[in-house]
Order: sequence, then C-alpha cells, then structure tokens
Amino acid sequence: MRIDIISAVPQVLHSPLHNSIVGNAQDNGSVEIHIHDLRDYSEDKHNKVDDYPYGGGAGMVLTPQPIFSCIEALQAERDYDEIIFPAPDAKPFKQQQANELSLKGNILFLCGHYKGVDQRVRDTLITREYSLGDFVLSGGELPALAMIDAIVRLLPGVLGDSESALTDSFQHNLLEGPVYTRPAEFKGMKVPDVLRSGDHKKVKQWRHKQSLKRTKEVRPDLFEKFRNEDH
Amino acid sequence: MRIDIISAVPQVLHSPLHNSIVGNAQDNGSVEIHIHDLRDYSEDKHNKVDDYPYGGGAGMVLTPQPIFSCIEALQAERDYDEIIFPAPDAKPFKQQQANELSLKGNILFLCGHYKGVDQRVRDTLITREYSLGDFVLSGGELPALAMIDAIVRLLPGVLGDSESALTDSFQHNLLEGPVYTRPAEFKGMKVPDVLRSGDHKKVKQWRHKQSLKRTKEVRPDLFEKFRNEDH
Repeated sequence: MRIDIISAVPQVLHSPLHNSIVGNAQDNGSVEIHIHDLRDYSEDKHNKVDDYPYGGGAGMVLTPQPIFSCIEALQAERDYDEIIFPAPDAKPFKQQQANELSLKGNILFLCGHYKGVDQRVRDTLITREYSLGDFVLSGGELPALAMIDAIVRLLPGVLGDSESALTDSFQHNLLEGPVYTRPAEFKGMKVPDVLRSGDHKKVKQWRHKQSLKRTKEVRPDLFEKFRNEDH
Repeated sequence: MRIDIISAVPQVLHSPLHNSIVGNAQDNGSVEIHIHDLRDYSEDKHNKVDDYPYGGGAGMVLTPQPIFSCIEALQAERDYDEIIFPAPDAKPFKQQQANELSLKGNILFLCGHYKGVDQRVRDTLITREYSLGDFVLSGGELPALAMIDAIVRLLPGVLGDSESALTDSFQHNLLEGPVYTRPAEFKGMKVPDVLRSGDHKKVKQWRHKQSLKRTKEVRPDLFEKFRNEDH
C-alpha cells in the first residue's frame, strides 16, 4: 500500500509516522508513506497557500491553486483509489472505513487548515470526506495521522499477532471488557479469579458478559445496534 | 495551563507538540507541556512496562507498577484537576469536553497500548476516560494529541483571532457550510455571488442556510439535536 499526504504544515506529521507501529510498517515494507509540502506547489511569489474567506469572518482558507497543482502532479504519476479530506463537517470515520481503506492500493490525504479549504477543491478533487469526531482541531494533520494508524495496523504483517486486530473493540459493535496483567495482586487489588482459572470456556463467557456490560454502560447507542443485529 | 503526558512511546509525541498551533502556544507561554517516559518508572530490570493479559488472548497490556509510580511521583509535585485515559471503550470526546478542559489548571494524560492498561489503573487513578471515535488505534498517543490540540486552541491568546473558535462547527450543534477564498473564478468555477456582494445580512443568511443544509445532509443526528433546542 502507498499513502500520500499533502499538508501546509508537514513538520507536524513526522514523529507519529516514523515511530511505533506505523514506523515499523514502513521499515518492513508493508506501507510506503510520502509527505508533500503544499507550499512547494504554490505559484504565489511568497509561497502563500491560504487567504481570507469571501464574505468575511475569522480564520484562513486554503486556496485552490496549490492543491490542484499538487494533486494533478501526483495523479500524473499514479491513480489514486481515494482522495480523502478529513473535515469536521463530514460523516464520522469508523472502524468500517479503516477496514475498507486497508484493502486499497494508493490513497491520498489532503490536510486542511481548521477553517477549511476552498469548496471548489472539495467539489471536484475529493472522493471521501471523514470527520474524526465532534470537535474542532487546528488542522487535518492529526485526523489524517489517526486514520492512517487505524488503516496501517490492519495491513498484513504489521501487528505481531494477526489475531489481535479482529478481537478489537468495534469489530462487532461491542466494546472490549476490562483487561488485567501481572501481578495477580497489586496494592491489595486482585485480578478476577476466573481469568487465572485456566478454564477457557469460562474466561470467554466472563469476557463476553463484561463486554456487554461495558457497552451498555458507556455506549448505549452501540449496544442497541448490537442487539438489533442477528446474534 | 499545564499538561503532562505519560507514554511508553514518547518519541511519537514530538512533532505535533512542537509545531503549528500547539508549538506556538508553548512558545508564547499559553501552555506548558511535559512528556514522561513510562519506562523511566519501571522497576523491572529490563524496564518492561507491559505483559501478557491474564486469561490469554492477543496483545500486550500495560502493567500497573510503572503507571502508579509515575502518577504518584507527579501527584507529589502538584494536584491534577483531571487524569485522562484515552480509550476506545469510553464515552466519546466532544467539543463540550474540550471547552470544559480548557478551563482547568493541570491535566494529565495517560496513553495506553492499543490492547489497553490493567483495569486496576483505570479503577483507581483515572478521573476521565474518553474515546476519540469508533475505531481502534495502536495507542493512546494520537487521541491524546488530538484532545490536546482541541483544548489548547481554545486557550486565551492562542488563536490569532479570538472570534474564530466560537464560529467553529459543533459550538452550536451545527456544521459550518462551505467556505471560499480567492480567486473569484478558478478553472471556470465561480465563488457564489452573495459572498462577494458586501451585503453582510445576506451573507449571514446564506451561511446559516448552508449550515443547516450541510448538517441535515451529513449529520442528521446533529440536525435533530439542533431542532430540539430552543432557537
């Protein structure tokens, strides 16, 4: 898989891409990630990439020219399966989207300023828009990094244990229950006996019960979804 | 405001904290951010901070000892208003939480491995747990960075234009409509006339209409919420 990222503040992207799971995935060849500095594509003499919004108001808006130039240059080299724009005013990004995107060959992320990008870019170049959640960030860089992390960890060979991603929260509309590790007792607090029993069937039952309880408690919306599915 | 972050992979955190809005906010003294390497607090001879989950299964779980040692050491120096654990199995982080947390003095983030942290830590040390969204990431670092960005940009003096944060999406359960900047015409695509009319009342009306339309289209859930409020 190849991922390209276009950003006006590319220096933000560095450390999360070059460490931990995503860094290792690049090192072992599971994914190739390329960063493009939007300013390099500006035809403005000061390499300007944003301007005031028409109609007035606060915040700067990314101008169309550098984005069109950059995306057209990249498209001349290869086809992109998706061109993704992380934006607060879009449908939420969920595990289902990470699953889907992990099967693509080439994807491109355009990171916007927090006040956004000229609508003409969204109307003509972007194929998918996703929101990370109902909060506003200073730019699209952290959402792009989060989406990339969610996608890359699903690629074959990236997680040490291939079983791991499938037991995660959200793969079945249920949250995971509590997890414990050594020591069995810490500051007087004990690990539940069942987890140390060696009885795999009982462990499985306990975990499922905890998972239902946790989902019902903190995410009644997901719990309803789970109940309405065919189980 | 002071923010502390505890992580087993602190090298991930660097570039988003030292650039752009959050970097500038630290430079101008609006916020102080301190990173703590969990491994420095491990009493294990190999500085181990995780172990296999009791009851079996994939993934590693952060052990209680280094986390208790680190948090107790930090608490000995100052009181924390909140100790936040980003986790997929928690209530969603929303703009309301960013608003609330931006008024605190000292907050502490504990970043977990993707398979989580020993439940005894969550039961006794953590005061708030938030999920970034319905997807799984390789750790709590990117969620912590996103929450910090959402909080820090609300601090006084951080955004150039203090009006800006208040007109953002989610501050009133409505998404923002489209934005445009120069040029007025690009590749045959024109900016809507009303935005260039200079008629502030008409601009305001147009924006409100677009905002309602966009919210209804991509986030019917938010639109319902908006309609049920007193407007």
